[in-house]
Amino acid sequence: MKKIIASLIVLAAVLLIKPAFAQTTDTIFTGAKATLSSYRALYYLDDADPKKIKGTLRNIDNALEDERLKGKLQVELVAFSDGVAVYDKSGPYEAALLALQKKGVILAQCSNTVRERHIDKATLYSFISYVPSGNGEIIIRQAEGWATIHP
Amino acid sequence: MKKIIASLIVLAAVLLIKPAFAQTTDTIFTGAKATLSSYRALYYLDDADPKKIKGTLRNIDNALEDERLKGKLQVELVAFSDGVAVYDKSGPYEAALLALQKKGVILAQCSNTVRERHIDKATLYSFISYVPSGNGEIIIRQAEGWATIHP
Amino acid sequence: MKKIIASLIVLAAVLLIKPAFAQTTDTIFTGAKATLSSYRALYYLDDADPKKIKGTLRNIDNALEDERLKGKLQVELVAFSDGVAVYDKSGPYEAALLALQKKGVILAQCSNTVRERHIDKATLYSFISYVPSGNGEIIIRQAEGWATIHP
Repeated sequence: MKKIIASLIVLAAVLLIKPAFAQTTDTIFTGAKATLSSYRALYYLDDADPKKIKGTLRNIDNALEDERLKGKLQVELVAFSDGVAVYDKSGPYEAALLALQKKGVILAQCSNTVRERHIDKATLYSFISYVPSGNGEIIIRQAEGWATIHP
Repeated sequence: MKKIIASLIVLAAVLLIKPAFAQTTDTIFTGAKATLSSYRALYYLDDADPKKIKGTLRNIDNALEDERLKGKLQVELVAFSDGVAVYDKSGPYEAALLALQKKGVILAQCSNTVRERHIDKATLYSFISYVPSGNGEIIIRQAEGWATIHP
Repeated sequence: MKKIIASLIVLAAVLLIKPAFAQTTDTIFTGAKATLSSYRALYYLDDADPKKIKGTLRNIDNALEDERLKGKLQVELVAFSDGVAVYDKSGPYEAALLALQKKGVILAQCSNTVRERHIDKATLYSFISYVPSGNGEIIIRQAEGWATIHP
């Protein structure tokens, strides 16, 4: 009996010493587990910098191809402000966008930006969608439980 | 009977071929629907770049004016790090801030930034609020169900 | 009786005039209240800019030290794309990272970035963890209820 109590005291001491959330070498962290049957993520893009645009499109593809999420992730990309550049017909992103759309990605453009900047919709790809405002879209999607990402 | 089975096979084939989340031309996507009675969004600003500041203030207004959210969106803006510039009395943002505050936007400044940078509060607008830390504010708000946006 | 009705009409008028979410001088806003027993936040870093990296590490520490969250906040930092710089042995961030890890912060690197850029893991700190993709990590964590922050 004494032995059991002594063991319990040692155990309690160990538990107290060990920080609650520490990365210990005996339990290697390899990423969060995807235990749900479906996931949803909204990416938002408000920058015309080609590096930022290419990075965002590559990030979306990386998420779709992540072994943990493959086949159960729905993605929407919403562009606003300078981000409208991603949908400009004179730009270099058509192939990447079509490849993402083929994987089910919703491609959406903020109507506010189009109106404020007097952009002719004919200069943007015809295969995209329009939402009232990019910011409203972000807020509603988060309230619906979507993850939102701004690379 | 055979005809019905054949039809069902064709239907099943069509359903199998169609990607789960595709944007089809027959169901035009026009943005997420705002089905809730109220929405909450925290914008955070950590940049002194006038373009970024102006964009953030305009984004907040666009969200408040989004036809889907109008009258049911509560917004808070929290500034930290270089974002404190938005509240500097010597800056050009007073009118825009007061207009947003009139629409109910909470204007908050990170106290950590003020302390770390030895900023005299008298140099910031008197109509703003202070929170212990901007980052703590973001985390608590998300846990409360607020959307958070970093333009 | 008339007096009560008159009072009620005045009260109703006041309530109607007062904006729903206004910051009034009589109720000074001092930040959201942390009413939960635990909080979780994922920071993501995709930039090599030393100012951005230092800011992110400082932000994490500020959140951990926020009087509202102290002792009940779990943090994970995930680096991807150019953000891998934070874990480069030739960089200046080792002390700050170890200090955060000591406070329980999970330090994670996107495996996709390492593979795509042919980075030798021996050039990164040995005390970090690897996740399949940084973007997948963000999405799964948000679905789990974690706040996500991109300074």
